[in-house]
Amino acid sequence: MAQKFASLQNIHFLLYDVFKVQSLNEIPYFEEHSRETFDLVTQTALRISSETLHPHLSEMDKNPPCYQNSEVLVHPMVRAFMKESGAGGWISANAPFDSGGQQLPFCITTSCYFLFAAANYSASVYPLLTSGAAHLIESFGSDFLKETFIPGMYSGEWQGTMALTEPQAGSSLADITTRAVPIDSQTYRIKGQKVFISAGEHNGVDNIVHLLLARIENAPAGTKGISLFVVPKRRHDSRGDLVSNDVLCSGVYHKLGYKGAPITHLIFGDNDDCIGYLVGEPNKGLSYMFQMMNEARLEVGTGAAAIASAAYYASLEYSRQRAQGRHVSCKAPSTAPVQIIEHADVKRMLLFQKAIVEGSLSLILQCSVYHDRLRSESHDDKKKAGLLLDLLTPIAKTFPSEMGILSVSAGLQILGGYGYCDEFPLEQLYRDVRIHPIHEGTTGIQGIDLLGRKVLGENGAAMMAFMGEVGIAINKASSYSELKPYSDRMKLALEKLGVVTMKLASIAGKGQPEQFLADATLYLELFGLVAISWQWLLQGIAACEALSSSGQEPDSIFCQSKIHTMKYFFHYETGKIDHLSERLLEDNDITVNVPGDLFI
Amino acid sequence: MAQKFASLQNIHFLLYDVFKVQSLNEIPYFEEHSRETFDLVTQTALRISSETLHPHLSEMDKNPPCYQNSEVLVHPMVRAFMKESGAGGWISANAPFDSGGQQLPFCITTSCYFLFAAANYSASVYPLLTSGAAHLIESFGSDFLKETFIPGMYSGEWQGTMALTEPQAGSSLADITTRAVPIDSQTYRIKGQKVFISAGEHNGVDNIVHLLLARIENAPAGTKGISLFVVPKRRHDSRGDLVSNDVLCSGVYHKLGYKGAPITHLIFGDNDDCIGYLVGEPNKGLSYMFQMMNEARLEVGTGAAAIASAAYYASLEYSRQRAQGRHVSCKAPSTAPVQIIEHADVKRMLLFQKAIVEGSLSLILQCSVYHDRLRSESHDDKKKAGLLLDLLTPIAKTFPSEMGILSVSAGLQILGGYGYCDEFPLEQLYRDVRIHPIHEGTTGIQGIDLLGRKVLGENGAAMMAFMGEVGIAINKASSYSELKPYSDRMKLALEKLGVVTMKLASIAGKGQPEQFLADATLYLELFGLVAISWQWLLQGIAACEALSSSGQEPDSIFCQSKIHTMKYFFHYETGKIDHLSERLLEDNDITVNVPGDLFI
Repeated sequence: MAQKFASLQNIHFLLYDVFKVQSLNEIPYFEEHSRETFDLVTQTALRISSETLHPHLSEMDKNPPCYQNSEVLVHPMVRAFMKESGAGGWISANAPFDSGGQQLPFCITTSCYFLFAAANYSASVYPLLTSGAAHLIESFGSDFLKETFIPGMYSGEWQGTMALTEPQAGSSLADITTRAVPIDSQTYRIKGQKVFISAGEHNGVDNIVHLLLARIENAPAGTKGISLFVVPKRRHDSRGDLVSNDVLCSGVYHKLGYKGAPITHLIFGDNDDCIGYLVGEPNKGLSYMFQMMNEARLEVGTGAAAIASAAYYASLEYSRQRAQGRHVSCKAPSTAPVQIIEHADVKRMLLFQKAIVEGSLSLILQCSVYHDRLRSESHDDKKKAGLLLDLLTPIAKTFPSEMGILSVSAGLQILGGYGYCDEFPLEQLYRDVRIHPIHEGTTGIQGIDLLGRKVLGENGAAMMAFMGEVGIAINKASSYSELKPYSDRMKLALEKLGVVTMKLASIAGKGQPEQFLADATLYLELFGLVAISWQWLLQGIAACEALSSSGQEPDSIFCQSKIHTMKYFFHYETGKIDHLSERLLEDNDITVNVPGDLFI
Repeated sequence: MAQKFASLQNIHFLLYDVFKVQSLNEIPYFEEHSRETFDLVTQTALRISSETLHPHLSEMDKNPPCYQNSEVLVHPMVRAFMKESGAGGWISANAPFDSGGQQLPFCITTSCYFLFAAANYSASVYPLLTSGAAHLIESFGSDFLKETFIPGMYSGEWQGTMALTEPQAGSSLADITTRAVPIDSQTYRIKGQKVFISAGEHNGVDNIVHLLLARIENAPAGTKGISLFVVPKRRHDSRGDLVSNDVLCSGVYHKLGYKGAPITHLIFGDNDDCIGYLVGEPNKGLSYMFQMMNEARLEVGTGAAAIASAAYYASLEYSRQRAQGRHVSCKAPSTAPVQIIEHADVKRMLLFQKAIVEGSLSLILQCSVYHDRLRSESHDDKKKAGLLLDLLTPIAKTFPSEMGILSVSAGLQILGGYGYCDEFPLEQLYRDVRIHPIHEGTTGIQGIDLLGRKVLGENGAAMMAFMGEVGIAINKASSYSELKPYSDRMKLALEKLGVVTMKLASIAGKGQPEQFLADATLYLELFGLVAISWQWLLQGIAACEALSSSGQEPDSIFCQSKIHTMKYFFHYETGKIDHLSERLLEDNDITVNVPGDLFI
């Protein structure tokens, strides 16, 4: 088993050299923190990842959760890790001091989550889901809900979940049918089914707290009639004891990967005795959920980049150990075979992986910093950060998810036949990473979100802000002779994105919504390439700055490696920008108007 | 479980309308055959696929071969299918009449193999491997070898294998160390280990016949000292009884997919009692093996396209049954949700799958027809067919293998969360298809084969022949107004391939072999896109011909579907030709000269 799964040096480079997050303490909310706390927290996360999580990676895959008499038995490390996550303050890390949290910046907790997920993705989701669910209660719930549910969740004794999907309502949440019948203004009887609920039932905790979407009797149809409820597996009775709340797990899914976490099918209120507690106001459930969606989607992108990181280091290690073949220029069979890292094609695949992993993580941390800047006291700062975060979230979810698959696949390919076998971690990582373009909104949904909502919203304000940010990077980069050719390429790419966006906007303006959104997925891919190019340019700038700084001695190999990987990305990956732009600028109806019976 | 896994109508369209293989009977070797036999054979293959193979697809995946006391226990259907393959003449189908075969064209047996593999890839390899091994004996073996081994193989009672790879020699066969010590001129004592040997041991047959590469004592180093041997698991003793031949299976690999077939680790001659029979002359083993390589590589491409075909029909079926969401132009929640095949993004993914599956199969059958034309009595015909077959084989192996992965992945994506679960076949097909860029020469090896050997060989004669063939298609297509825009695109693409090839040839000419081959994998991808564009143009021409013919009533929806899928391919997939060409025309050393320590 490969030992390295992520680079803390890279995380620190992104945090401090690229995004300068040490200055986040200028925002009052974060003033207690400093680079020292950030170092300590990330180092601790790496230690836990190495010691608690990584050793169980393969074991949890080979012994997936087992469904038995309505219970789901999970690996014993789940209980241990949930406790450690509670005791160490990981579940409440982002929460405010006054609710028992640590008020840590999102970019720091995201870095830690990246380490956890790189070590063992399945294990990493248990506390993460709990954190997200608790955050929802904290943001929109009554004091009663906060007092009743949050302590158990922050301590890691109770699991939190998001219970959205139903058999007939996946991508289309408008079609949710789970019913809520009022007992009083805060308490409802819940009845319905939820599917694909991560960690919806397991024996690693003492209770499970579902944040569930349901429709109150007589609510308006569609998304405007959906409310949010807290529905625990066990509720308190009048004496304060925990009793069953009529939530039944009817089974777990058998999945391609991501096997260490149970994805469950849940039945609520089969005996008409399932109580749900309303969160916030009736019929606003989806808007509450959407306010948490950016975080959840960034976390999916982080999980994908993390798995791709583990694959990169595993294939790098193999490529340094495995001897096979000879240099093209020296084929004599009497000479010794060389390590496969010497072959250009293997180097290309390693550079591809590195470019995807580090480019993705950079965009994720960029978004996390915007998230943290929502805490700024300046209205303009907050406004800009919010626009950019909303705009870039579908990209930070999708680029790592889609490209992570290809990146892990390249890692598997480096191992040849061994990559296809379970003695090495690649085949598991290849299965694990495939979930990410699916959950928390498929790639298709993200494309529609980006193009249909984010890009054209507020008269294109977010798009303008994005262009401005990239423009700053282009200017900075152009002052370094080594980066100049790439800042020129970046400029062209940005212009293309602008032209395509205007063209699509004109189609939307003509009242042709089907044509407008037909290739939203391709637009998302195009935008992703532009955004990651920008992130690589930022990394190139930071590396050049470090190399030319007269202060402390830079790690020159690290900086050269950054600059070289940036070059790889521009030379090998950005060409697709042209091809996608051309496609998006063409007028044709290849998909929209093809009748279904032509599929034979 | 989806019922349809392949389209016989499509196979017949390719065979008869695109490649006009009914005229193969003008070649004396095939004169006994006609469209009637071809129809009968392919219909029978579909029936066997549906009745014998497809019902066991999931079962064989969930109950993989089990290693027990040096034996490998496989699913009982393996014995049944091997017997059926023997009795039905499938294993000997290509062999000449006078050695008990049916002298069927390779394009027909490839079509049948496509059906078998689409129904159940793992099951399909048992007879296929036997056929390939028998073919080697038939081509290069002595009468003794033919009489001793072929009957058991053709009857399906004995399994054939290819035993090439060793722990230290995978991509680099030059480094094989298995030893052969002469007993007499035909008989040797074999000692060594082989790994990743498909069907190298199992209880579905009574004996196993390994076609094994080994090095005779004192043979020259490298590829020039490798000889080919027949090494049976059980050999005949002096009384004609079968006795152990000291071949031990020490284990099976646990793989990502392709689980129905055992991939074994074999130890030969651990007790110095393993006899091997020399095939042909000493030290010519690799050249014999290479003469069979085209077939083996086409078969890998066929397997990949077949799995992608099964995925296409499974996701198509789902997309017609699953209701979710509404048209962008009609979002009212009071309206009923639509079938997901109505969504443009789903149609795009279905068109992508269809374009990859049918484009790949077309190229494979094109190569198969060239293979059959090697039987032509005209020297020029044979010469041209040989050049084109050699040139296109690495592409027909790789394009389906690499794009098959993406195609199956798109199918999985259409099913959303269900695609990730094992209630539907997609997740298995996704695992199964990943083997193809690895076995029978990785994609990296195919790229070097194409660019380093095939393209520049014989002063570019193969490349000239290819350009000529594509030119004919361009001319034909330009006479149909519906095809004209695409024949223009094809022309540009072909020109780009020419320019890139000349540029790379000039680098080779300058004596820079490392730089020349550094991006051979990208060149292979570029060539693949050009070749598949050509195949789609040919299909477009055949569809237009059928629609405009005054003869029998064409299936107009089928033809429209072909033309539409061709358009999809040109609009959505061929743009990458520009990007790859640009990359290949750039001067830079991103991979060749990067030192290994920059990977951190």
